[in-house]
Amino acid sequence: MILLGVDLGGTNIKAGVCSASGTVYASDSIPTFAERGPGDALRRVVALGKRLAGRRRIDACGMGVPGPLDLERRILFKAVNMKSWENVRVPEMLRRGLGVPSFMENDANCAALGECHAWPRVPGFVLYTLGTGVGGGIVLDGRLWVGASGAAGELGHMVIDPHGPVCGCGKRGCVEAYASATNVAKNAGMPAHDAFPAAKRGHAKARKAVDLACWALGVGISNMINVLHPDLIVLAGGMAAAGRALLDPVRAEVRKRVFPVHLEKIRIEGTRLGDEAGWIGAALWAKHKVLGP
Amino acid sequence: MILLGVDLGGTNIKAGVCSASGTVYASDSIPTFAERGPGDALRRVVALGKRLAGRRRIDACGMGVPGPLDLERRILFKAVNMKSWENVRVPEMLRRGLGVPSFMENDANCAALGECHAWPRVPGFVLYTLGTGVGGGIVLDGRLWVGASGAAGELGHMVIDPHGPVCGCGKRGCVEAYASATNVAKNAGMPAHDAFPAAKRGHAKARKAVDLACWALGVGISNMINVLHPDLIVLAGGMAAAGRALLDPVRAEVRKRVFPVHLEKIRIEGTRLGDEAGWIGAALWAKHKVLGP
Repeated sequence: MILLGVDLGGTNIKAGVCSASGTVYASDSIPTFAERGPGDALRRVVALGKRLAGRRRIDACGMGVPGPLDLERRILFKAVNMKSWENVRVPEMLRRGLGVPSFMENDANCAALGECHAWPRVPGFVLYTLGTGVGGGIVLDGRLWVGASGAAGELGHMVIDPHGPVCGCGKRGCVEAYASATNVAKNAGMPAHDAFPAAKRGHAKARKAVDLACWALGVGISNMINVLHPDLIVLAGGMAAAGRALLDPVRAEVRKRVFPVHLEKIRIEGTRLGDEAGWIGAALWAKHKVLGP
Repeated sequence: MILLGVDLGGTNIKAGVCSASGTVYASDSIPTFAERGPGDALRRVVALGKRLAGRRRIDACGMGVPGPLDLERRILFKAVNMKSWENVRVPEMLRRGLGVPSFMENDANCAALGECHAWPRVPGFVLYTLGTGVGGGIVLDGRLWVGASGAAGELGHMVIDPHGPVCGCGKRGCVEAYASATNVAKNAGMPAHDAFPAAKRGHAKARKAVDLACWALGVGISNMINVLHPDLIVLAGGMAAAGRALLDPVRAEVRKRVFPVHLEKIRIEGTRLGDEAGWIGAALWAKHKVLGP
């Protein structure tokens, strides 16, 4: 089975062709040119997919998208940070262009599915995506868990302090209100990717912003552990590039909050696939939809 | 298949005999006499099981127990509020007495499995047990989810306010620190089962204690929904006897915190099986262990 996976972002579109077991044959990325609208972008995705496949015949296509979807995953209601991307029938447009069954899922969910695939023997897997917002995805026994509403894994909107700062969602004290790149940048007074090195150099405001983000992630992850006790939690997304400067304080906060005997079985790690996880997961999602569980 | 299910409590032991599909043939309860030790109690459980089975031949036995278990569910390390119940090999003792495969699982997990069985077509199910403490259990696609450590569903120890009151676990602001019967009683200055009617009559301290408990449950449940988006959340245990006086304010708090479009698919209800859920779930757990998933 040959799968085309696509990860739609506001700036770039990543795509690749892989086997049913996730072996990568080819991958590439192109600019989104979001302002030109979905028709233009999806036509170029189809062309890219055909080029990447070469002589291989694509059997199914999956695409990860940023934004709220209908429960049947037929309509992308609104893509985050992409004007004119409203009520787009993504799978239908891909199916027409490629002539194969095509599917769509939330991008963080696709990233979770892809990343989980890179870690053998992990029955309970949770991915945190640390970017402009804080998102997440949950994979249980190898299957994506989307829940009743299709929107499970909203890990950034767990409230950890009802008196905390106001979040973009309107609630107070969500993990995202402390730990998104946007809020780290605001608190540090510099771009988020500069805040970690600045904190290390002793910049007081950056130090405080980074400490706050790591504390919030630690509390949020501990709460999620209380619910699910997953085997593995992976931190991914732009801010995860900070590596151990992020992982170590987050792990320390979690150690304060989860019984040691339970924590023995639970790991918190950085990503293995980086930003390749999204398209690989989208491809594996298409396989799941075609073949069933 | 004939199953014996047992729910071990500090005061009473409930047991029953049912079919593999959960049809109840007989059930009864006996005093625990915890102070006489596990040998005495388990001998009486065996006698009760044989009496309840009558001419039916028991094929497997499951027991729900209150306390921390080893990962293989062979040893009950310590039963809550039951002195001299330490390092008890419950399944081995039951197997010897009954001559059939016997299994043990956490009591809240058993209650979740039993209660879930009473609600058809619920892929994502979460039970909150509101008693001396606040516990929980998670059933996904009909299977108990215990996680990497075997201790998933510790829903009472989700932190909702890092500056909140100190919980029995040592952390601050756990759901349990507001919403356990113990803490409601302390805050209300009267037994927890009196606090709800007193609050209704306008007793200020009781009103405050009840409001605080419902708020905490609402925040905790909203956070859990952010992770799992289950189809159904059931509130069980002694305090759930308050019925709509508990359910309505909890639902109202959740409505403030979860997107309406997501909440459409998620219900919060009282228990259908009451305190029968524990032994029925224990019986179904034994079936699962014998037959596999």
